[in-house]
Amino acid sequence: MTIEIIPVPINKEIENDDKLADLILKAAPKIQDNDIFVVSQKIISKNEGRIVFLDTVIPSLLAVGIASEYQKDSRVVEAILSETKRIIRMKNGIIIVETKNGLVCANAGVDESNVVNGFATLLPKNPDESAEKLRNEISNKTGKKVAVLISDTFGRAFRMGQTDAAIGVSGINPLLDYRGKKDTFGKELKVTNIALADELCAAAELAKGKTLKHPVVIIRNYKFDESKGTAKSLIRPDDEDLFK
Amino acid sequence: MTIEIIPVPINKEIENDDKLADLILKAAPKIQDNDIFVVSQKIISKNEGRIVFLDTVIPSLLAVGIASEYQKDSRVVEAILSETKRIIRMKNGIIIVETKNGLVCANAGVDESNVVNGFATLLPKNPDESAEKLRNEISNKTGKKVAVLISDTFGRAFRMGQTDAAIGVSGINPLLDYRGKKDTFGKELKVTNIALADELCAAAELAKGKTLKHPVVIIRNYKFDESKGTAKSLIRPDDEDLFK
Repeated sequence: MTIEIIPVPINKEIENDDKLADLILKAAPKIQDNDIFVVSQKIISKNEGRIVFLDTVIPSLLAVGIASEYQKDSRVVEAILSETKRIIRMKNGIIIVETKNGLVCANAGVDESNVVNGFATLLPKNPDESAEKLRNEISNKTGKKVAVLISDTFGRAFRMGQTDAAIGVSGINPLLDYRGKKDTFGKELKVTNIALADELCAAAELAKGKTLKHPVVIIRNYKFDESKGTAKSLIRPDDEDLFK
Repeated sequence: MTIEIIPVPINKEIENDDKLADLILKAAPKIQDNDIFVVSQKIISKNEGRIVFLDTVIPSLLAVGIASEYQKDSRVVEAILSETKRIIRMKNGIIIVETKNGLVCANAGVDESNVVNGFATLLPKNPDESAEKLRNEISNKTGKKVAVLISDTFGRAFRMGQTDAAIGVSGINPLLDYRGKKDTFGKELKVTNIALADELCAAAELAKGKTLKHPVVIIRNYKFDESKGTAKSLIRPDDEDLFK
């Protein structure tokens, strides 16, 4: 069956305490069971007030030092450090950290794009909870069983460019584990464990664009396992990671 | 506009010198301009005879050593080494290499899944050329302007599970560069450069599955830049990579 990637245009700048589920449902086509909502981190952050006015940030000495080394705004660096559990790599002006939620990404997800000048957005405090809350609201309002993913745009080791990945998950198992299943020749698959939620976010990004106003995308006709799972299970534990 | 991910079922085991374009077109819906064909590496490799009968492989001493350390088949390790430019990490039984084509991946893409017992597939010798050849054939047979991506399934640093990524590209710019463009607030985007070809391959994987016979997927209604580009431009150069 053809899988559909349906953009949901939202022509309103999302603000703190906007009724996000209502805005999404107003803009979306008629919801069906098993629709997967992929929602950009940016609008979740704005809706949750996870946004800083840079003029109010007082940079630490460390932030001032890093900023001067890399010609960055020390207030932005301070915002990054305040979201950071540990720095993984810092080189060529790039700051890769592990966030307090365990994500490895540039700038701890602190981002000045697509937000009013002088402000930066932070990642949601608990993106799995944000996804769960939105899913419950959409389910309650529509009576349909849906899944919600919160996506952000991350660079990768070894490869150029960025792809979207899931930082919040609700109502869908984010991994599709084939280990132990049989391939087309009846041989047991040994390693295949697809990062389904990341693939869904990457697919959704195709319909989002960065300069459009499509912060939400519905993926339809994709059969998924609704068993519990969170974005935490997409984070590779330290002892299994060869590159941290 | 809704983007479509259309699986193309091919119920024939692909062999050396099968007429792949004909088999794909026979199984596909009517082709339209701008259809993007995402083709699994596995069937390209089989079609190009990039398959080894393990009984004919004579393992080197190094291969025997690595294999005994990690309880692997020394003939498979030898096949991996023969595809390898350099070893990036070797730990916990995982062998991450840079292939002769510059890809960083586990086992140099050597894979015993979805192939007859006792054999392993190697990556195509030049996946960009493979993509170009298939694209020309499809274009010539249909009179339509199409793009072709060859995809493989890769693990990632920091994150669990695997996603599909592009190892061969023809007829589409694999990167979608927003740098210098304006965001929704008129601010210049500084870093966004989407790895479009990888996102397309990830989207296609959703319709492929590992245990199904959908080695080809068409992505339709996605507007793309057809300017020249190869999968090589998705490989991060050493001097820009923080994790090799």
